[in-house]
Amino acid sequence: MTNRQVRVTELPKGTLKQDNFELTEADMPAVQDGQVLVKTTLISIDAAMRAWMQGATYRAPVKPGDAMPCYAISEVVDGNGTKFQSGDLVAGESVWADYAALPARGLMKLPKVEPLSHLMSVYGIAGKTAFHGLVNVGRVIAGETVLVSAAAGSVGGFVGQIAKAFGCRVVGIAGGPEKCAWVTEELGFDACVDYRDPGMFKALRAACPDGVDVYFDNVGGQVLETALFVMNERGRVVCCGAVSQYDTDAATGPRNLPGLVVVKRLRMEGFIVMDFVREDAAALRALQTWVASGQIKVTEDIVEGLENAPAALIGLLAGENKGKRMVRVAADPS
Amino acid sequence: MTNRQVRVTELPKGTLKQDNFELTEADMPAVQDGQVLVKTTLISIDAAMRAWMQGATYRAPVKPGDAMPCYAISEVVDGNGTKFQSGDLVAGESVWADYAALPARGLMKLPKVEPLSHLMSVYGIAGKTAFHGLVNVGRVIAGETVLVSAAAGSVGGFVGQIAKAFGCRVVGIAGGPEKCAWVTEELGFDACVDYRDPGMFKALRAACPDGVDVYFDNVGGQVLETALFVMNERGRVVCCGAVSQYDTDAATGPRNLPGLVVVKRLRMEGFIVMDFVREDAAALRALQTWVASGQIKVTEDIVEGLENAPAALIGLLAGENKGKRMVRVAADPS
Repeated sequence: MTNRQVRVTELPKGTLKQDNFELTEADMPAVQDGQVLVKTTLISIDAAMRAWMQGATYRAPVKPGDAMPCYAISEVVDGNGTKFQSGDLVAGESVWADYAALPARGLMKLPKVEPLSHLMSVYGIAGKTAFHGLVNVGRVIAGETVLVSAAAGSVGGFVGQIAKAFGCRVVGIAGGPEKCAWVTEELGFDACVDYRDPGMFKALRAACPDGVDVYFDNVGGQVLETALFVMNERGRVVCCGAVSQYDTDAATGPRNLPGLVVVKRLRMEGFIVMDFVREDAAALRALQTWVASGQIKVTEDIVEGLENAPAALIGLLAGENKGKRMVRVAADPS
Repeated sequence: MTNRQVRVTELPKGTLKQDNFELTEADMPAVQDGQVLVKTTLISIDAAMRAWMQGATYRAPVKPGDAMPCYAISEVVDGNGTKFQSGDLVAGESVWADYAALPARGLMKLPKVEPLSHLMSVYGIAGKTAFHGLVNVGRVIAGETVLVSAAAGSVGGFVGQIAKAFGCRVVGIAGGPEKCAWVTEELGFDACVDYRDPGMFKALRAACPDGVDVYFDNVGGQVLETALFVMNERGRVVCCGAVSQYDTDAATGPRNLPGLVVVKRLRMEGFIVMDFVREDAAALRALQTWVASGQIKVTEDIVEGLENAPAALIGLLAGENKGKRMVRVAADPS
């Protein structure tokens, strides 16, 4: 039996390209003490993966020759004497491969949910990131105006729908008129502004007549700079990502920082989803409630086949996805 | 009787210059209903005054032809039927002039303190800004490392001394070896790094072997960018000012924002001293305690004569002062 892997050939300079990766065939991984053998079901595709290729972040940097690391849902093939049994469904850090040997202590057993992909979207990192960022960092209150960038993306779409459920005015920022229309019509945002429009600043002012109280920032860069101009005093900027800065070697800083932070008494705060693990149960209960009531629509963008993982990530960085993007490597276990 | 005023001739483009101001002689101001006539004693010279000349901040922008606005301590000459009596000492917004007619509701009666200048430094906006920023925004804790820029300036010097009183390791950033030596030797900081030194980043790393938990930022720009690299996870950036960005028309943004805010889960928060007026009594009691114990040395830089106010501000923006700078317009009232 052989095992397909996608490895990083060399780290990208500038825009990520197909030839930064290669598909290889290797022997089945050797399973060491404390590890389990898993078969990959679904791989999460996230903008942050590009940041991992830029150096140390909240995890070790990716190195040339590595199988590309990822977050994945897998089925246990061999529990190897750990707490996991064969057939268990687990989630955790893995690699772009059909099979992987993973440390048991890094894995979490998953419940059986229909469809399984919801554990990767609304009940996974995307939904929990949206909830914790908006509620526990942004401390959103009914009646406030919430602005969110990458609004058609996995996290942004949930942020806006959660903010609507809270009773906020919700404005998105997305790339292109088609995505903007989808964000308002499909996801129910009050308005959505196209960041590629040269008149973006005016459009943003018009969409936010009472200013912005919480800006959920997934992109950084110029969009952040523009958003700071429409923030209200005592506004909060939830710093979740900086996707505009990842796939480039010419990052720029917002020129109105820290000036406007002082003048408007803003709070900018970064977080990652693991910071709020104690609040996960409450978040999941809230998300289930809103899915059941129809206040959250779950939109997923599933790419078929391990061999298409590089293109899936490259396309995500270029903004081609709507909703949570993932790669299906194998059918859901029965 | 005539009244000298310093007026703004035209708004500065780039660096502030002497000919942006003119000294004029005018009639004594006419006192309207609700106003009092005051005689200026001490004028506060603050970097923020340059920001007021760039457009709207937390106050209305300065316009050409205006007498230069300022914060001042004055003696009431004519209470004009308001709650103030002639001879009262008052503080509040005023202008660069010997005499001014000011709305009574904008003024605060001051206690008689020896020396009066302490009401402008440690017991004034500088001391309260340092206290509220470090304690109420930065939430500093004993054992942490506190970094402060403009460490030889009015606010920065108090920030470092208060942090020492709390039991922190305190590192300053200042301009030039002479100022750095003064900050460590006179103010008792553990170390001080020269921002003009091309090896600043390495020097900062060496001065902060355990990283930085609270960075009190008075300057923004490149120094902020460098400081973000040495921040610890969960660190707090207290945004008090952006003096590097005021006296220029070529402001630059920190390129590592918001990337490092996300990765390190930082909190950046702006404030102005008026936000914490409810906590002023507690702040003043703490400051008096530390002055009495010798843990805070009060350093003041008093420039004599209204006519020297423009040079005092220009010099402050160029970084020539040590401690709180003010202009004496008249002797302390007896």
